Amino acid sequence: MHYNAELIAVGTELLLGNIANTDAQMLSEGLSALGIDVYYHTVVGDNPQRLREALEIARKRANIIITTGGLGPTYDDLTKQTICETFGFPLEFHEDIWREIQDYFYRRMKGGKITENNRQQAMLPVGCTIFYNPVGTAPGCAIERDGVRVLMLPGPPYECRYMFTHQAAPYLQSLTQEKIFSHELRIFGMGESQVEATLHEMMVKGANPTLAPYAKTGEVMLRATAKAHTQEEAEAMLQPMLHQVKETLGDIVYGEDVESLEEVVLAVLKEQGKTVSFAESCTGGLLAKRLTDLPGASQVFRGGVVSYTNAVKAAALGVDEALLDQYGAVSEPVAKAMAEGCRKLCGSDFAVSVTGVAGPDPDDRGNPVGTVFLGLSGPDGAICRQIDLSRGRSRGHVRHLAASHSFDLLRRKLMDLPL
Amino acid sequence: MHYNAELIAVGTELLLGNIANTDAQMLSEGLSALGIDVYYHTVVGDNPQRLREALEIARKRANIIITTGGLGPTYDDLTKQTICETFGFPLEFHEDIWREIQDYFYRRMKGGKITENNRQQAMLPVGCTIFYNPVGTAPGCAIERDGVRVLMLPGPPYECRYMFTHQAAPYLQSLTQEKIFSHELRIFGMGESQVEATLHEMMVKGANPTLAPYAKTGEVMLRATAKAHTQEEAEAMLQPMLHQVKETLGDIVYGEDVESLEEVVLAVLKEQGKTVSFAESCTGGLLAKRLTDLPGASQVFRGGVVSYTNAVKAAALGVDEALLDQYGAVSEPVAKAMAEGCRKLCGSDFAVSVTGVAGPDPDDRGNPVGTVFLGLSGPDGAICRQIDLSRGRSRGHVRHLAASHSFDLLRRKLMDLPL
Repeated sequence: MHYNAELIAVGTELLLGNIANTDAQMLSEGLSALGIDVYYHTVVGDNPQRLREALEIARKRANIIITTGGLGPTYDDLTKQTICETFGFPLEFHEDIWREIQDYFYRRMKGGKITENNRQQAMLPVGCTIFYNPVGTAPGCAIERDGVRVLMLPGPPYECRYMFTHQAAPYLQSLTQEKIFSHELRIFGMGESQVEATLHEMMVKGANPTLAPYAKTGEVMLRATAKAHTQEEAEAMLQPMLHQVKETLGDIVYGEDVESLEEVVLAVLKEQGKTVSFAESCTGGLLAKRLTDLPGASQVFRGGVVSYTNAVKAAALGVDEALLDQYGAVSEPVAKAMAEGCRKLCGSDFAVSVTGVAGPDPDDRGNPVGTVFLGLSGPDGAICRQIDLSRGRSRGHVRHLAASHSFDLLRRKLMDLPL
Repeated sequence: MHYNAELIAVGTELLLGNIANTDAQMLSEGLSALGIDVYYHTVVGDNPQRLREALEIARKRANIIITTGGLGPTYDDLTKQTICETFGFPLEFHEDIWREIQDYFYRRMKGGKITENNRQQAMLPVGCTIFYNPVGTAPGCAIERDGVRVLMLPGPPYECRYMFTHQAAPYLQSLTQEKIFSHELRIFGMGESQVEATLHEMMVKGANPTLAPYAKTGEVMLRATAKAHTQEEAEAMLQPMLHQVKETLGDIVYGEDVESLEEVVLAVLKEQGKTVSFAESCTGGLLAKRLTDLPGASQVFRGGVVSYTNAVKAAALGVDEALLDQYGAVSEPVAKAMAEGCRKLCGSDFAVSVTGVAGPDPDDRGNPVGTVFLGLSGPDGAICRQIDLSRGRSRGHVRHLAASHSFDLLRRKLMDLPL
């Protein structure tokens, strides 16, 4: 049996552009891991007629339909009823779910009031598999008609992810045998077109395994995917491919099955038992934020200074005011002095500094947007690297790239790679 | 003429969940502002047959079809040809666009290589309106057949936004007369259900103007929308509605037509000529990052310290080690001392501190995840507020909420509202 799924997101807020359809992304990734192909995503508003039409199209071209949204208590969440009318599922009231909804409210919604609208969330199709919702009020469910399975999940991303992971994915896994296995390689230091041109031979379509590139902000992710019945069978296909990519691209491949440069930096620091601190000017706390987004950061991160003014560079980091006067804040001597001062202040093994022009305007010494100096101080002294981010497309982009380069510089230092 | 649009995003990476369809969000918001209804979003993979089927469905139910993606040079970008085959548009080669693509490459892609694949980007349907692309290589276009307009835009979000704003939106604006005008109110301190229950009377559907709530992370956004021929006509409907909402909800409405609490804080600080600094423990740089995401932050932000360890709290902020020993880092006395020390170090008018437990684990004194103390130091002394974020759903969520509460505390202090 070949399963293919269509995702139908219901919500006028999606059609108005208030939010992005991140549920579809999460579900697609999860279905892909289960070996279930997704051929279409559809988004419709809180409009019963158009939802009905979308369902009629979907039931002809997919045998798994997963809806997100439209299970909530607000007046425009009319969609569970529409789905049940279209497929001919009668609804029934579930006393136990009604009690759970009330419990959830009294437990979590301090100051919130349960309304009569919440009651309709306890109505579910007769004969369905109920997906309970411990992290919200709307329960979901799965039900089958004429070979088409319909799964209804809540719209709020956290609830949707929770219910998919804990209830819908196990339900779907029980349907299918063949699985998809994949590994991801992360690349920093080469653009997508160039990666693709370099690895073109390996990216022939339709084969098993496959290799495909995805552009991320300032990075490229390569995903190697194999269809197989077992992990072992898949690895026998995937490992030689991964090896070849690493041989070809070298040390710009910074990690396998990781999410970010900072994740690698955190792991290497932990492994080496070393600590780090950050002195940030133009990135304004972004390095610290990105590292401390990760659980366990406190094992390696001592702290840092956001020295957005020269006075703070001098007072907190001990940067010599003469240096600031002579070279300006965006300069090699100041980048080094920031890193050295930060390392001393925080008592860390390493310190990374960033000083540059994030934009939108050049600095008062005429340095153009995208001029950035990175400092790195360690037990064997301080170095500086100037990077040119004038290709950065916005303030946010320049800041993100500057932070990524900082993490890459630290990674290279820690792993003894060319700086 | 009533225009309604369908967005078709083309890209297997969307169906695999590698990226979210943020282009659809951006376009939907832009079309809504032009008064063009969007009834459906569709996503298909890099598969000519399924794309053709999606186009056949769309041309029956929409008179504007906007595709995103599939205009790039990589081998799987086969979709421009599919669109042209489906609608019967012959393609022709444009020498001037080919020159632009080459120029773009040599100018921007330092180290990149132009490939033969890039050549096919210079093929466009005969008779189309060309959308030039100064920020990428793929040009877009618009063309009409049997009353259906098809617009092709590039997939990369920055290019898509740029081309929509500068070329597609003006093209579409010339088609339509009636416009949609809206204002947004931002609320911090009340959940979506509660806001909805409170304002229920005003949220009757189908009227003009309308009022609709949207949940944001830790916040609610209310959008008031009017259909009208002129701005004046719209404002006459919208202003009384906005006034009534503000009267009803009070000072939890923190801004009108703004994006975030930090945007309001930045504006008020600028207006009052005051400066601020941040001492961050559990937020790890997030406050500084959020404020410095905004252009112009340097006018009011002096800097800050990410004091992730007690040693840094003592060394950089001068927090008395006796306080740390006696009360622990997550406590009222330490929050106050952090704020006071930061204000002194950075020479700012105000300083905000955050110390708490972001998770995933409780701290070594047994404070549960979500325990957070905020300190605020100003010319008239220091205060502390304890907040309970145990409802936070993840480390990232707790950190985000802690930062939002910090900005709200500062906003209230600056605007003389109840703390």
